[in-house]
Amino acid sequence: MRTVTYGAACSLDGFIARRDGGVDWLKFTDDARAVMAEYWPRIDTLLMGRKTWEAAAKAGGGGSAGGIQTYVFSRTLTSVPAGATLVREDAADFVRRLKATPGKEICVMGGGELARALLAAGVVDEVGLNVHPVLLGDGVPFLPPAAGQVDLELAECRAMAGGCVLLRYRTVAPVKAPAKSTAKSNARRR
Amino acid sequence: MRTVTYGAACSLDGFIARRDGGVDWLKFTDDARAVMAEYWPRIDTLLMGRKTWEAAAKAGGGGSAGGIQTYVFSRTLTSVPAGATLVREDAADFVRRLKATPGKEICVMGGGELARALLAAGVVDEVGLNVHPVLLGDGVPFLPPAAGQVDLELAECRAMAGGCVLLRYRTVAPVKAPAKSTAKSNARRR
Repeated sequence: MRTVTYGAACSLDGFIARRDGGVDWLKFTDDARAVMAEYWPRIDTLLMGRKTWEAAAKAGGGGSAGGIQTYVFSRTLTSVPAGATLVREDAADFVRRLKATPGKEICVMGGGELARALLAAGVVDEVGLNVHPVLLGDGVPFLPPAAGQVDLELAECRAMAGGCVLLRYRTVAPVKAPAKSTAKSNARRR
Repeated sequence: MRTVTYGAACSLDGFIARRDGGVDWLKFTDDARAVMAEYWPRIDTLLMGRKTWEAAAKAGGGGSAGGIQTYVFSRTLTSVPAGATLVREDAADFVRRLKATPGKEICVMGGGELARALLAAGVVDEVGLNVHPVLLGDGVPFLPPAAGQVDLELAECRAMAGGCVLLRYRTVAPVKAPAKSTAKSNARRR
């Protein structure tokens, strides 16, 4: 099964960009570059929501490059330029199937809305944050509020250059409550 | 000048309690106890907002004990029980004066609303978080959204028992832009 990771650089108060999209506060240190240089060769697939796609396309990126397959999840878009693939079906169902196909690791890009949906569906395996030493006050959250708790297991915690902290977690599959039908059938047996 | 610290235990998505106030997800590990055992003797003053005060009072606490002076900041309360002191004036002005009086360190309790106001006013010296390995999805934020950025300096980053991470920061005083009046008077001089 292919590993799906949601990674982002965020402020201590959990924002990945200012309200206007500004990321002037991001520190591109050698440590951060080393983390990306180690991670990038392990993936062959990028997943992003519509807003992230549009922001990336505006910035001149957004297509697929270097053998990376990009999937854009949207129910409102009708097409995306060649190089990317539009997915209009339920994101969790699609990613669940994608994980079972052969391939390298899969990266969920922030925004956060897609990541939150995939986390809720239990198809994200790892969460990685590069926590920057700043309180932005307001902005785009690395995960928008949502119903449902996701338990994590700390995999790595490391101070990096510029006062940044790398936090890596593995998601913990929810413990399934015993099916009610079993209790019922036991009761019937008594 | 006395050191003012805002400290809290929070989820990775930045909540200090569930929406209903629930903190069942908090881990009371020996590591967390050791951090508190080291910190507690250093303080003699607790600052809290009305909501935190009411929650503490409901839980049977909220008074002053063991030589700790408690200040409750509220514009709506008219009195608090003996042992605590009600402050109805501007919180930042009050804390600025308090810092200049002799005494031990000062602790701002979560809530977050009071902490955000004091951070914005530049009277908080340290921020400490015990980040728990869980995404709660929703709840009471460790800092509510606000205008204004606060730059931080990483002081400590340490993995603790139970997958928790201790993050300690010092606030960085904002670099003051040259006063406009100076530019004006310079212009007048030319």
